[in-house]
Amino acid sequence: MNYRMVCSTVGKMLIAEALLLLLPLAVAFYYQETGTPLAFCITAALLLVIGLLMGVKKPRHRRIYAREGFVIVAISWLIISAFGALPFIFMDAIPNPIDAFFEVVSGFTTTGATILTEIESVPKSLLFWRSFTHWIGGMGILMFVLAFLPQHENQSAFIMRAEVPGPSKGKLVSKTMITARILYGIYFFLTILEIIFLWAGGMPFFDSVTTAFATAGTGGFSVRNASIGAYNSLYAEVVISIFMLAFGVNFNLYFLLLMRQFGRVFKSEELRWYIGTVVFSVAVITVNIAPLYGNFATALRYAGFQVSSIITTTGFGTADYTQWPILSQMVLLALFCIGACAGSTGGGFKIERMMVLCKAARSQLKRAINGREVVAVKVDGKPLDAKYVHGVLAYLGFYVIIVFVGLFLICLDDVDMPEAIGAVLTCFNNIGPAFGRLSPVGNFSVLSPVSKLVLSFLMLAGRLEIYPMFVVFYYKAWKRKN
Amino acid sequence: MNYRMVCSTVGKMLIAEALLLLLPLAVAFYYQETGTPLAFCITAALLLVIGLLMGVKKPRHRRIYAREGFVIVAISWLIISAFGALPFIFMDAIPNPIDAFFEVVSGFTTTGATILTEIESVPKSLLFWRSFTHWIGGMGILMFVLAFLPQHENQSAFIMRAEVPGPSKGKLVSKTMITARILYGIYFFLTILEIIFLWAGGMPFFDSVTTAFATAGTGGFSVRNASIGAYNSLYAEVVISIFMLAFGVNFNLYFLLLMRQFGRVFKSEELRWYIGTVVFSVAVITVNIAPLYGNFATALRYAGFQVSSIITTTGFGTADYTQWPILSQMVLLALFCIGACAGSTGGGFKIERMMVLCKAARSQLKRAINGREVVAVKVDGKPLDAKYVHGVLAYLGFYVIIVFVGLFLICLDDVDMPEAIGAVLTCFNNIGPAFGRLSPVGNFSVLSPVSKLVLSFLMLAGRLEIYPMFVVFYYKAWKRKN
Repeated sequence: MNYRMVCSTVGKMLIAEALLLLLPLAVAFYYQETGTPLAFCITAALLLVIGLLMGVKKPRHRRIYAREGFVIVAISWLIISAFGALPFIFMDAIPNPIDAFFEVVSGFTTTGATILTEIESVPKSLLFWRSFTHWIGGMGILMFVLAFLPQHENQSAFIMRAEVPGPSKGKLVSKTMITARILYGIYFFLTILEIIFLWAGGMPFFDSVTTAFATAGTGGFSVRNASIGAYNSLYAEVVISIFMLAFGVNFNLYFLLLMRQFGRVFKSEELRWYIGTVVFSVAVITVNIAPLYGNFATALRYAGFQVSSIITTTGFGTADYTQWPILSQMVLLALFCIGACAGSTGGGFKIERMMVLCKAARSQLKRAINGREVVAVKVDGKPLDAKYVHGVLAYLGFYVIIVFVGLFLICLDDVDMPEAIGAVLTCFNNIGPAFGRLSPVGNFSVLSPVSKLVLSFLMLAGRLEIYPMFVVFYYKAWKRKN
Repeated sequence: MNYRMVCSTVGKMLIAEALLLLLPLAVAFYYQETGTPLAFCITAALLLVIGLLMGVKKPRHRRIYAREGFVIVAISWLIISAFGALPFIFMDAIPNPIDAFFEVVSGFTTTGATILTEIESVPKSLLFWRSFTHWIGGMGILMFVLAFLPQHENQSAFIMRAEVPGPSKGKLVSKTMITARILYGIYFFLTILEIIFLWAGGMPFFDSVTTAFATAGTGGFSVRNASIGAYNSLYAEVVISIFMLAFGVNFNLYFLLLMRQFGRVFKSEELRWYIGTVVFSVAVITVNIAPLYGNFATALRYAGFQVSSIITTTGFGTADYTQWPILSQMVLLALFCIGACAGSTGGGFKIERMMVLCKAARSQLKRAINGREVVAVKVDGKPLDAKYVHGVLAYLGFYVIIVFVGLFLICLDDVDMPEAIGAVLTCFNNIGPAFGRLSPVGNFSVLSPVSKLVLSFLMLAGRLEIYPMFVVFYYKAWKRKN
């Protein structure tokens, strides 16, 4: 373990967070708030001092490997969440440190589960910061560092691999820094586009910006108590649905679009599965809830928005789906587990993994029929590497184990079965709302501090795709040599 | 596909069922029942005639492969269940054919989920047949054919592989027929032993026999409305617990004991994981429910019985666990999914697979830390074949997919979330009781006919470990050549 390199990289990341805090600070000044400017300044100053101190001892060599990449990412995410919670504590908006930590972890991991019961009374700069954490976390704060602070190519590759979601982690271009900049460019452009569309449709500018941040990161924090339902605007719902789905697409496809390789985009099997899953789910739920709303159009409106929100793991709400028939709830629960495309800002198990899983199961069935013959698993017409398939299947194993351990720990709290299952799956998959008291109209404040810490861990494990969070707790990873 | 060979083998199996029906017929005569003797005679005669007709056309060659093995097993299980239901329909004990089919599938697959609301009023010979289906299904009716009707070695191997549960299907001795006889011998001996122990403890002889059948097959049908709780006997509960756990052990270990290879039994990792899981679960639940029962001893008694019953997928009950705290319910739900050892009469995902899964996940974590190095998965000190590990992981994939599809279909019925999840998991894992109205004190009669058929399919898919039931519906398997 190259300790100094880990230390200095985490230091850089703290400095980056200090810089990012200038934005909510500006918002605080703009709205002439009292108190919040000081809260942001103190936090930024702390980050800056500690970040600079961590970079004082220059590493003897700059080589890092996969394990350092994991450790850097895991520690960074824990620390930025802890510091990011300070303004909420300073301002008494969330007096309890565990609650504040939960809220900010939920922000950075783009989960969007909230412990706030009364959102609209929180100062605007804090709400801005809360939504901004979604935007930062969506693409990854270390990706930000990679894109805009100088790094060696060797380091960047391992850090990127640890932070970017999805089973296959290709770079768009040979240089990681350029890849990171291209991805941020696309991200930035789409976000601006959504702000313009929302604002043009009559949503207040502040709401447009924060909603766009939460959509872009597929987070789901809203600045209104009733989430997107508060605007009661079909236009806004359609715009947000389209953008949620757009941010759930593998960003590599946007790059291919820019490169004018339309054929490859069109042929992407993952994209087809993604669209297919959305269409199928919307159709089933629409038919299922139509009697509830009395007409088909309203049912389609609610089904479309909720499905887009859940499959992309955003978690915005316009309807309380816990009042829907059980079939619709079960379809949503399945979407809880599937999640968005790999390489998007969405969380969950990922469409790519689900696709590989279905194909691996089919190939196993064929193998069983034909005796010993091995049937290759193909995606986009190319046979997949057996190790890659093995990795996806082992990931499912890890996933299931973590869900069960999470369930046991949550059940120490006073919850019922749908609440427990919902809480674990919604946090682990970075969605937001769950079932029972944790429904879209409820919130997570009813849980015990222990549950909130467990769920915080699950949110981080989900966002970072399990391994980084476990490497940190795996003593062998900390050995000085290999 | 060697159609004639499939046809004649299924025919043999029907004849075997006709012979097995002589036992409940004898019971009917013993208790001087009216009606039931005729019902059993008609059923047996039908089976005999159809079975003989199916064997008239001699196959041109006797070679069969994996696909024929799967098809024979799947069709056999469907047909014996359909015919096994006839006596219940003839006697009006279960007038609805779908209900009767569900009940008998539940019997043969050793699930033990019942649609009967009033068990004690059913004629004794029918109750005997109901429990006897557990005993037949536990070891497998085709195993019975293999053991006692003449077969060619080539055929037997593929049939055994398709019917015996567990990821690794070794034969004890080189000949399948001898292996089948040894397994049946052990099975028979343990069953007799349990009957003696129960009878000696004061349980009526009829109850002792039927309870032993249900324990041996890890089924769970009881001849009392209150299941094992009806006897209110600590002695009986302890005896049944021990035997349930014994029938959940890989039968290969008993063979090793007979061969005096005690060292290999002691070193079996699967056995250690099994015992470890039982001890851990009992400990957690005992502590968790102790306040409910006021004292530790009663809590231990109930926890011990229920854990043994669920992990072995038997499904006997002495307490309504749906009244327990949520943590205990969640531990039981996890046991729902784990199941007993491979090569036992128990169902579920199997301890062996869980063990391989945990080890594969750990090896994947190590791989992530160390970069590209592959870490072998070892069991009993020997590294596992990569294809075997892949098979276990793909099985999990299939398992998860089926659970979700099952959930969607059950949710077309009027159920709540715990009921839906419980019903699917309890049937797919061949356990018996579930949650909500399907709790140990409830029953499955509340469900719709469609749900009962879906659950019947899940029970068969679970008992036969997925592939046979899907091969039947996979058109390519029916091709004449290849």
